[in-house]
Amino acid sequence: MTARTLQGFMELLPEEQIVMEKMKAVIAHTYELFGFAPLDTPVLELAEVLLSKSGGDTEKQIYEFKKGDTDLAMRFDLTVPLAKYVALYNNSLTFPFKRYQIGKVYRGERPQKGRFREFYQCDIDIIDRDELNIVYDAEVLAVIYTVFNKLELPAFKIYLNNRKLLSGFLESLNIADKTVDVLRLVDKIKKIPEEAFLGELGDLGLPEDKNRKLLEFIKIKGSNSQIIAKLEDLKIESENYRSGLNELKTVISQALNLGINPDNIQIDLSITRGLDYYTGTVYETFFDEYPQFGSVCSGGRYDNLSSVFMDKKFPGVGISIGLTRLFDQLRANNLLKIGGPTPNKALVITQSPDFADQAVHLCGILRQNGIAADIMLRDCKFKKKMEYANKIKIPYLVIIGEEEAASGTYTLKNMATGEQNLFAPDELIKQIRF
Amino acid sequence: MTARTLQGFMELLPEEQIVMEKMKAVIAHTYELFGFAPLDTPVLELAEVLLSKSGGDTEKQIYEFKKGDTDLAMRFDLTVPLAKYVALYNNSLTFPFKRYQIGKVYRGERPQKGRFREFYQCDIDIIDRDELNIVYDAEVLAVIYTVFNKLELPAFKIYLNNRKLLSGFLESLNIADKTVDVLRLVDKIKKIPEEAFLGELGDLGLPEDKNRKLLEFIKIKGSNSQIIAKLEDLKIESENYRSGLNELKTVISQALNLGINPDNIQIDLSITRGLDYYTGTVYETFFDEYPQFGSVCSGGRYDNLSSVFMDKKFPGVGISIGLTRLFDQLRANNLLKIGGPTPNKALVITQSPDFADQAVHLCGILRQNGIAADIMLRDCKFKKKMEYANKIKIPYLVIIGEEEAASGTYTLKNMATGEQNLFAPDELIKQIRF
Repeated sequence: MTARTLQGFMELLPEEQIVMEKMKAVIAHTYELFGFAPLDTPVLELAEVLLSKSGGDTEKQIYEFKKGDTDLAMRFDLTVPLAKYVALYNNSLTFPFKRYQIGKVYRGERPQKGRFREFYQCDIDIIDRDELNIVYDAEVLAVIYTVFNKLELPAFKIYLNNRKLLSGFLESLNIADKTVDVLRLVDKIKKIPEEAFLGELGDLGLPEDKNRKLLEFIKIKGSNSQIIAKLEDLKIESENYRSGLNELKTVISQALNLGINPDNIQIDLSITRGLDYYTGTVYETFFDEYPQFGSVCSGGRYDNLSSVFMDKKFPGVGISIGLTRLFDQLRANNLLKIGGPTPNKALVITQSPDFADQAVHLCGILRQNGIAADIMLRDCKFKKKMEYANKIKIPYLVIIGEEEAASGTYTLKNMATGEQNLFAPDELIKQIRF
Repeated sequence: MTARTLQGFMELLPEEQIVMEKMKAVIAHTYELFGFAPLDTPVLELAEVLLSKSGGDTEKQIYEFKKGDTDLAMRFDLTVPLAKYVALYNNSLTFPFKRYQIGKVYRGERPQKGRFREFYQCDIDIIDRDELNIVYDAEVLAVIYTVFNKLELPAFKIYLNNRKLLSGFLESLNIADKTVDVLRLVDKIKKIPEEAFLGELGDLGLPEDKNRKLLEFIKIKGSNSQIIAKLEDLKIESENYRSGLNELKTVISQALNLGINPDNIQIDLSITRGLDYYTGTVYETFFDEYPQFGSVCSGGRYDNLSSVFMDKKFPGVGISIGLTRLFDQLRANNLLKIGGPTPNKALVITQSPDFADQAVHLCGILRQNGIAADIMLRDCKFKKKMEYANKIKIPYLVIIGEEEAASGTYTLKNMATGEQNLFAPDELIKQIRF
């Protein structure tokens, strides 16, 4: 039998996995700092529940199968399970409901570079009943900002927009009936030349003068305050437009009020997030120097989370980080600080098996004092033990030889500086902790 | 469309999920303290890989399906994926290889009380090439001991045995050819009456006098040192037996050397873990007052992890905690300290929407200082905000009214003691941290 892992499924070596787990922990911890509670839903759901709202691509990609008489499917995102969860448990939940979920999702697409069939999504959503305060859209910005700062990744910018601005603008051009198609098309503007974009608008049956106005509109550039001033100057007569502009202003001012660096947010009127799903604020996040990564954190505001399951209205705002792909891209570009294959802070080794009992005892004491530690228990030469210590990149080495065993003070070697001294256990713990 | 979750799949409310996540974090942290590195393998594998070593029940329970031309299956434990991983990557791994994995596994058995189709296993294993030092079996004991202490659960005992003792004893009775069957039968001794046990031994074709001797042997009681003395007094002539007895003595003495409380470990000669897989030390863990939970942490030593995939020999020792079932049992017996539905430490509320900007700003400062905090942004009466604060069981409430807004000092209310005072932001942070 040949050992094999399926294509499109990430499997890491310990030294990489340690970095991945740290990233997950930073993300979870930041989400909790902003008051999001953890949620965990099943990977398997009834197929009809997962497919309740989806179309073409999803159905093709989903892992779906029968067990007994039941049609089952593996979740392809964390949003549909959240919609189900809120519909099921809304009477037991406290609103506003802020939840985060870090979990694997599955898409059986053709494997290709940078695409995974199993990947982690790290989602947050804030859901309320009937109405959700717009300041939450600023909170989500602050979460993205804080997460990416804490992850110590390359310089990034969060691009934001409000879909009501574009819909309002289309109303003012009297082409509101084409809003869904136009917003989907605008979402592609960065990937196709301007002339192709105008051509595709023409294919929708829209006149050239309006298309050029639209192009001009989504190309408005400048600082956030300059763009807002320009948007105000346009004096568009549309309730939607005015509401979108007010929301955008509030989101930016409250994000700054929450303490985020203004250099990290940028209004971009061409951001729409193709999905019909979003109804107001939309976000995308790019690394300044690595635009080819694509958006590493996206999301937005939606009017009604659970509409396929119930009549009650649950508006929300949320974002998702596609962690597996992000990790893969960072690794490919040497942007991860990868250390050794062990979480250990200290390794205890002996110069002779006679001191094994003392080594085991000392290692126990280190752990009881909260220091991740290990003993090299292989019966091998001292030189081999030193090689092992170097291979696992241990920060501190504790050596027990004849002198140490007799005196009860142990050699502590700082592997980074090469410094070494004798210490009693108490002092040794302090040195490692320091 | 009706929102529904599949039977046998655990889905928790936020206040429960917070406890579950804390348990996972304690387990992961303890595993790392003992030098285990995290591992994450796919939930989906090639069916032939997962079924390479299994028999009857597994094949019936496994979620298996075709996607395109490929036979896929969802993992039913974390051991087979580990065997595959070590076979695939052994040239890149550093041995001894200590890994932990906390992940969901899937068994499509008939749902019944206390049985789940999706559940978390929390595994550790220590793997070496060719030979693995017996002291690692003591390390595993120390891990179980430390995990259960840190989880702050009811009083527990770890029962241990060494399968070589029983095989050696059977050799001395000249019935070594029945070892596999007898060990499986002994595993059931706690669940059936003695006469039935003797009857089943008889059904294997074994004579009654030997069966009575066997029963006497596995019923040897006493303190650990008394049992060891009795085992020595038997003077069994078997290499296997002597080796098992020496291993057992080393495991116990090194576990004590590592600092575990002797009251928490107990030799029990009737523990065999039915599986053929185990070859030496075996462990089971029971709560003293809740034997009906069954073993909440089990495992043992095995000679060769990856034998179905390769010729190289990888002996190991490991254990698994079935976390989903454990959580479910603890919850059913009110043994979990369940708090509120939010990780927040502080909630900021205002007496009028006029102070919303100040509330947002203060909340940002709290978070920048590492305090999980939230603002109540719903536009509602102050009384409703207080009700919300009580409902989410927030530890600290920060109130901004006219006086606070004007002075820049805010009312901090400790919700446990009812105490409240005015503080400037710096002092307020110190109070909450304290």
